[in-house]
Amino acid sequence: MTRFDKLSASLRDFGLDAVALNPGPTLTYLTGLRFHLMERPVVLLFAPGQPPAIVLPELETQKLVGLPFDVTPFPYGENPAEWDAVFRRAVHSLNLDGKSIGVEPRALRLLEFRYVKGGAPEASFPDASSALARLRICKDQDEVQKMRRAVQVAQNALEAALQNFKVGMTEKEFAAELTVQLLRHGSEPEMPFSPIVSAGPNGANPHASPGGRPIVRGDLLVVDWGATVDGYISDLTRTFAVGEVEAEYRKIHQIVQEANAAGRAAGKPGVPCADVDAAARTVIEKAGYGPYFTHRTGHGIGMEGHEEPYMRGDNLQLLEEGMTYTVEPGIYLPGRNGVRIEDNMVITQDGCESLSDMAREMRVIE
Amino acid sequence: MTRFDKLSASLRDFGLDAVALNPGPTLTYLTGLRFHLMERPVVLLFAPGQPPAIVLPELETQKLVGLPFDVTPFPYGENPAEWDAVFRRAVHSLNLDGKSIGVEPRALRLLEFRYVKGGAPEASFPDASSALARLRICKDQDEVQKMRRAVQVAQNALEAALQNFKVGMTEKEFAAELTVQLLRHGSEPEMPFSPIVSAGPNGANPHASPGGRPIVRGDLLVVDWGATVDGYISDLTRTFAVGEVEAEYRKIHQIVQEANAAGRAAGKPGVPCADVDAAARTVIEKAGYGPYFTHRTGHGIGMEGHEEPYMRGDNLQLLEEGMTYTVEPGIYLPGRNGVRIEDNMVITQDGCESLSDMAREMRVIE
Repeated sequence: MTRFDKLSASLRDFGLDAVALNPGPTLTYLTGLRFHLMERPVVLLFAPGQPPAIVLPELETQKLVGLPFDVTPFPYGENPAEWDAVFRRAVHSLNLDGKSIGVEPRALRLLEFRYVKGGAPEASFPDASSALARLRICKDQDEVQKMRRAVQVAQNALEAALQNFKVGMTEKEFAAELTVQLLRHGSEPEMPFSPIVSAGPNGANPHASPGGRPIVRGDLLVVDWGATVDGYISDLTRTFAVGEVEAEYRKIHQIVQEANAAGRAAGKPGVPCADVDAAARTVIEKAGYGPYFTHRTGHGIGMEGHEEPYMRGDNLQLLEEGMTYTVEPGIYLPGRNGVRIEDNMVITQDGCESLSDMAREMRVIE
Repeated sequence: MTRFDKLSASLRDFGLDAVALNPGPTLTYLTGLRFHLMERPVVLLFAPGQPPAIVLPELETQKLVGLPFDVTPFPYGENPAEWDAVFRRAVHSLNLDGKSIGVEPRALRLLEFRYVKGGAPEASFPDASSALARLRICKDQDEVQKMRRAVQVAQNALEAALQNFKVGMTEKEFAAELTVQLLRHGSEPEMPFSPIVSAGPNGANPHASPGGRPIVRGDLLVVDWGATVDGYISDLTRTFAVGEVEAEYRKIHQIVQEANAAGRAAGKPGVPCADVDAAARTVIEKAGYGPYFTHRTGHGIGMEGHEEPYMRGDNLQLLEEGMTYTVEPGIYLPGRNGVRIEDNMVITQDGCESLSDMAREMRVIE
């Protein structure tokens, strides 16, 4: 069964006549094609039983040469005034007006949406995220192998970067050093995200950007980083002690480490995602730090940094073999310091496995 | 005049009551705030005369601490079922229903759009790109200085990477080496784009991705790369000869070099963008290679890799002091090789200046 066949089946199950996709993981998963998301719209239209149509800039058409499936190109030139007519032709070629055309609201921009809608004013555009997530949510062996390599590259890179760590470096400097090592160790240049390197008060912000403050003794240092290998990513976090740190920081590190272990142990086929969240969260709540764990326990991972399934307390979705996700509990003490420990998991036939194995114990660097 | 004051004036001129912005350059330009674009929607709503409202995840609210302007936060928790109500409250707080709410179709996703529209079902959502582009299109001295540094970092990085070039490296290997050097020389990790390194037949594709083919003697090597400094970017291209190359390749390099010089010379205040395109294009057409120059001559540049003004034959927009843009003519011989030479320009009081000065003559590397 080709990936387009899987898509056709999923669209039928969800009552959708077609999908309209812009550049991103779903389009790449289906076609192998990669485009930058830019001011020139690119849209793939697919309706079961017909070759897909793709609207794209003339200067991108070379990418279609040698594809292992039929696709009808609708190229356009540099003048945006022409684009509307080209989109209309593409939409009409698949006879999509009045149909139910699924879209990905997290990916599709108004730019592409308005052109597609221009060609199909009577169509409806329901959210097809679930129909599409289903295609990619269970990874095959080949995909897991790529993720395993992305984890290995990331771990090796951080180990190398730590050899060059010096107290007094700024967060930005260590982030740049880590990025260099990620590339040296084999990550693709399109990384899943820029490494988060946050120390001291900045570490209390789970989504901090690296800043210009020097990393000093007494800080906890949160490093949240990942690599890309063959389009698949890793997303890990470790927290280090810079020299001697306060007793409470050692304590919260220990609690988060136990929460991470409990979260990692909880996954197996048939278990709801909510149970993974609960396993990690309970450890932190019992220790009295519940209010300081301000986010869900994890998210799916694969071609995207955040994808289904989400490890959230209200998510009753059942885990299945091949699902891959993060376990990343944390404790954040506002204005002081934070701890997060994150691993990448895969559900196996009868349990789960952590793709990452870098030591989780609090390591002192200086 | 603050940037929000400029925005208020521009909205009035374009007959807009408000704007809805998701994370991206416009939001960062106005507020200094940076967010990753992810599955959790973030939207800033602004209507003149009122503090802006921002809908964002609870765990991102720390970023609002210490902002130099009033903003009303509408934070939400982890359960997407709650988000709709939070968006409604934010939209109602500014009394936006029935109003004309400008949007950026190239940035705003259906995700954010549908939540905003949920709170303002009677509003209209016209394209505010022009009203917003006007804010950022003329750079002040501080912005030009950042771009100058982004150019310098890029040039130094390529020079360093070339020292490590070896015939037989793959495009991907040289792209990784260049990325490492960009970071070492001071680029922020969020680069404007992954370097394009394309040799031989791949160089005939203006938007190629680096591939696994070794770069061999006789190839032209196109390197299209840039750096980010303080949120501003550079975007340059140089084409090298790998050892001895065919006479026709030397010839097209010479033609493109002349086209680049003509395009660089054409800009000054009051001149239409179309004239810059025509200046470069005429050189290539006169040499008989017109059909092989398949894209516009350039695009605006600043916080984004592609922004207004566009150097296109049909663009009658007049250049003004402080506008910054690329001049990047090329000749692409399908299946064989390509040449592109790209510089970054700024319009001065009475002419223009190239921010980039790396030698443009065909340099032989081996």
